[in-house]
Amino acid sequence: MEESWSFLDTFEPNFRPLVVIELAKGTKEETIKWFTKRIVDKKVNGGAQLLVKQLENGDENVYLVGASHLRLLLGAETVGLVKECNDNSMRTFTYSSRKTFKDFADDNHNFLTMAECQYIIKHELENLRAKEEKIIPGYPQAKLYPGKSIVRRLLTSGILVQIFPLHDREELKKLRHSWYGRMKIGYQPLDEIRCYFGETIVLYFGFLEYFTFALIPMAVIGIPYYVFAWEDYDKYVMFATFNLLWSTVILEVWKRICAVMTYHWGTLLMKRQFEEPRPGFHGVLGINPVTGREEPVYSSIKRQIRIYLVSLPFVCLCLYFSLYVMMIYFDLEQWALDYHEENQSNFSSLMLFVPSIIYAVVIEVMNRIYRYAAEFLTSWENHRLESSYQNHLILKVLVFNFLNCFASLFYIAFVLFDMKLLRQSLATLLITSQILNQFVESLLPYWLQKRQKKRMKKHMCSPKTDLDLSLVEQVNLEREMGTYFGTFDDYLELFLQFGYVSLFSCVYPLAAVFAVLNNITEIYSDALKMCRIYKRPFAEPTANIGVWQLAFETMSVISVVTNCILIGMSPQVNALFSDSKMDLILTVALVEHLLLAIKFIMAFIIPDKPRDIQIKLDKLEFESLEALKQQQMKLAAESLKE
Amino acid sequence: MEESWSFLDTFEPNFRPLVVIELAKGTKEETIKWFTKRIVDKKVNGGAQLLVKQLENGDENVYLVGASHLRLLLGAETVGLVKECNDNSMRTFTYSSRKTFKDFADDNHNFLTMAECQYIIKHELENLRAKEEKIIPGYPQAKLYPGKSIVRRLLTSGILVQIFPLHDREELKKLRHSWYGRMKIGYQPLDEIRCYFGETIVLYFGFLEYFTFALIPMAVIGIPYYVFAWEDYDKYVMFATFNLLWSTVILEVWKRICAVMTYHWGTLLMKRQFEEPRPGFHGVLGINPVTGREEPVYSSIKRQIRIYLVSLPFVCLCLYFSLYVMMIYFDLEQWALDYHEENQSNFSSLMLFVPSIIYAVVIEVMNRIYRYAAEFLTSWENHRLESSYQNHLILKVLVFNFLNCFASLFYIAFVLFDMKLLRQSLATLLITSQILNQFVESLLPYWLQKRQKKRMKKHMCSPKTDLDLSLVEQVNLEREMGTYFGTFDDYLELFLQFGYVSLFSCVYPLAAVFAVLNNITEIYSDALKMCRIYKRPFAEPTANIGVWQLAFETMSVISVVTNCILIGMSPQVNALFSDSKMDLILTVALVEHLLLAIKFIMAFIIPDKPRDIQIKLDKLEFESLEALKQQQMKLAAESLKE
Repeated sequence: MEESWSFLDTFEPNFRPLVVIELAKGTKEETIKWFTKRIVDKKVNGGAQLLVKQLENGDENVYLVGASHLRLLLGAETVGLVKECNDNSMRTFTYSSRKTFKDFADDNHNFLTMAECQYIIKHELENLRAKEEKIIPGYPQAKLYPGKSIVRRLLTSGILVQIFPLHDREELKKLRHSWYGRMKIGYQPLDEIRCYFGETIVLYFGFLEYFTFALIPMAVIGIPYYVFAWEDYDKYVMFATFNLLWSTVILEVWKRICAVMTYHWGTLLMKRQFEEPRPGFHGVLGINPVTGREEPVYSSIKRQIRIYLVSLPFVCLCLYFSLYVMMIYFDLEQWALDYHEENQSNFSSLMLFVPSIIYAVVIEVMNRIYRYAAEFLTSWENHRLESSYQNHLILKVLVFNFLNCFASLFYIAFVLFDMKLLRQSLATLLITSQILNQFVESLLPYWLQKRQKKRMKKHMCSPKTDLDLSLVEQVNLEREMGTYFGTFDDYLELFLQFGYVSLFSCVYPLAAVFAVLNNITEIYSDALKMCRIYKRPFAEPTANIGVWQLAFETMSVISVVTNCILIGMSPQVNALFSDSKMDLILTVALVEHLLLAIKFIMAFIIPDKPRDIQIKLDKLEFESLEALKQQQMKLAAESLKE
Repeated sequence: MEESWSFLDTFEPNFRPLVVIELAKGTKEETIKWFTKRIVDKKVNGGAQLLVKQLENGDENVYLVGASHLRLLLGAETVGLVKECNDNSMRTFTYSSRKTFKDFADDNHNFLTMAECQYIIKHELENLRAKEEKIIPGYPQAKLYPGKSIVRRLLTSGILVQIFPLHDREELKKLRHSWYGRMKIGYQPLDEIRCYFGETIVLYFGFLEYFTFALIPMAVIGIPYYVFAWEDYDKYVMFATFNLLWSTVILEVWKRICAVMTYHWGTLLMKRQFEEPRPGFHGVLGINPVTGREEPVYSSIKRQIRIYLVSLPFVCLCLYFSLYVMMIYFDLEQWALDYHEENQSNFSSLMLFVPSIIYAVVIEVMNRIYRYAAEFLTSWENHRLESSYQNHLILKVLVFNFLNCFASLFYIAFVLFDMKLLRQSLATLLITSQILNQFVESLLPYWLQKRQKKRMKKHMCSPKTDLDLSLVEQVNLEREMGTYFGTFDDYLELFLQFGYVSLFSCVYPLAAVFAVLNNITEIYSDALKMCRIYKRPFAEPTANIGVWQLAFETMSVISVVTNCILIGMSPQVNALFSDSKMDLILTVALVEHLLLAIKFIMAFIIPDKPRDIQIKLDKLEFESLEALKQQQMKLAAESLKE
């Protein structure tokens, strides 16, 4: 059978639309022709060898992209997907060894999940590179150079409005049902979520679920403290010590659970792909020292200058501003207290909570405004890689949010020494921010989207359920949906929550209870958000929660320090060391150092991967080493025969 | 040209002996025959395809092993040597791409250094594996199983006395001259040392040299404190702060320097080989889950029981004993003080130093005895891998040595609060241990070996210089030399020295001066030791100083804590905070936490590899990813044509 890559571009009768490409209105015909030609063109000619179909949609330039089954399998090899073999081991998929994989059959079109197919198509589209073209045809201002990703240039020059994967209405319905449709508390269907949304998103939901379960012991232990109003120092010390060790253990155990999950999803074994410059990166054309290719180069010194001379001072200014707002809050608080003392009415005692609530709202608003500023600044710093951009953004946002949220609590605890106020502030801040978040993140967009959908359906003049929608209607509906910008905000919310729970846990044991309650509804509202409100996001393979692991670990180190100091300040402990303040402080310092040492030793001793996963990884490595050895022997023998 | 592996066993006229194999006296003829046959046998028959020659040496079973040039090149590929290419990049050597490597020529027998050749031969010998043999012929008690390394079994059953690489008298003379022959202070010839002794040893010498240079600023700044008897607190604080940050910086910079060196030596890029069980490992035959091969298996639970129920209590007992000895030392100290006060003579003031000196000697003796016990215990724990054995041994030894050496100093500083005694003890301990070490490590073996050499030469009845020795005489001489057991003791000595210098640096700034002086002579005496006293050790490729980096970093963290406390205890600082002890302690705690935070942030920010090395590594990774992609494309196209 004499076939080549070329046969892939023959039209497939059962064209399955996977990805939607929306070009700007009024894009020149010449550009469209060139772009679609590149998409369907053969690999040897530098094309992506995919299938493209225009959506019959009036004057708008919407295209559907699909691919033949064979093309997708070859793409799976290119992106380095890892799949389960017949012998239950996970291996990198290659087309030549396809028969050894579980569930593989030439006619089984479900071997790759739809999310994987869409990821492959996205990867192929993004790797569509300019050859000798100097510009995008029809747009002389949109410059190209050999090797530049065409899609990225089209995006940055505004010709390409968006690319997004299509929902699978039927699958989505099933997923919705098993995820949050049945009103029963239970584990999330993580494998199904992973198949539909990919690893990055399911890892967030997995972490959210795990974290909620991990908080339950803290919550359960915390309840009697509130109910019986336990104030004995030994009980508090026990609670705080338990919390500190527990927070270390849960973060270590998460790594292991994460390894187990991502091993079975195949992402633990996936090789890191070479990272291309991010779309927004710009610079003068030069030679990249790593690839030897011509591409934009931006001096690292210029970037450092921008970071240290502009971004850093700006962040410091914002921090100062946040502290200034905090001082205003304390003035308000004082005013409310005076007012209450003057009037002593029910209204005035309610007024006591008002400053905290206002402050909580202001904090949320400031966090969100700062977020935009941080994104703008980090983007202006012109990082070459998406990962470096993300790290700088996360660092900026974390530092500010940490100070913004916790500065007032630190001030109350360690300057005013007012434990009652601390407890009250903590509760108000925690609960207000949780309510605000739930509202802004899920309910508001849900409501907005529902309204819009209704309006659109009115346009179509025929009430239909989601499943009855024609393809054109589905695409038009999804085009208008909001875009999910990644798990950043969701992790950030969890991070701050972890701060509220752990930093002052020995003062307000009930925080864990609120966190658990919030997280249970959070799971449902986030699930709703993913399934109903946003466009389907592209699946992104990932093996861990990345820099967030470090962020959570740092927070748990800081919480050791704060809790030790709080316990040292409690009147019960002070009464114990009534003769010598010095002994008290020395004891607290000693205990703190011991706890920190135990933390680090525990983190060191607990292996990051469970034994059986480690053995499987070792086995794979051993096999590849053996294969290499065999190959060397063969090559050497051949070279001797020449 | 029709050649195969088989032609390698033709006798080469210029046989160059590289490695010496000494079998036990009276080894059965049958065994020798079988073993040598396996060494020279063809690869396809499971042999090592090396060359063997018996040494004409009376009744002793000494064999010389060599290899043809081609065999060595193929072996270099097997062990994964990394060499410099013509375009100045470092690449893994393969025989088929040999022409692209710098200095390669088919008749250039110096392309591989002698140390590399010896390493290859060692690797090949160790990978000589049993096939269907169930026992070693002639020794029914020495069991074999398929895949068991023959050489390791011969070693553990005592048939094989030793394997060691031969010195190259001429090269050694040159090396000696450029290393320590010329009596001038300067950099060591690290590249030459690396060519002769391999990476593990040269990394130790590189680290020793680097560390000495790094101590010089501390020593220089420390001298005026001694000369002018500066006791102002601000100067001490400055000195201690400088020390703390400096010790972080030097450890981070070392990583970078190490990366530069090992990149150019090729070991930074060398792939980790699959680790075989260590020779002493035993267990019942089972299936290894990783390799799927039949080999001894030892239950991890049994090992854990041995570690936690035997080793751990034993270590604790030793620690207790060490503390007990320390208390005796303080009694002695007190007695000496009383004696001095009674007599007030010159003799009695000298007597003041006697307890410290005795204690220093006792510490050294205890360290050495404990070392044997730790080795015995760790070996009894029956670790499967050499690396795991080493880690457990190092942990045991470090904990004990740390306590043994520094417990008395901690006691003096933080229980007795006697800074004068601390300074005196520190000086005595440091200097005594340095003198003892120099004596035991170098001078004693040197003297012993010199005496033995003289005796041997008398036997030979003809006084000759080293260069004139016949091969037989050289082998016989080297056979009797001591064996160098690795860099463990040398690093340990440096580690303890680092402790003396950094833990109490703000009390005794002169410690760095002594350390520098000691290290300069240490370089010379260690060089002497390597070149004159010990058998040549096998070169071991390595990319860093491994667990010692962690040990040094831990020490520098501990030293932040001790120094902060010491400064807090100084009378000058106490005078500053005369009204409130509490403020003092809080300030000290705050400063300590700040310093620790700065340390961790610095360690995080300073990249572990210099930019240019990182670019080179990225480039290599990019190339291999590209090659893989090309290969996949080719295979996919081929598979479509089928």
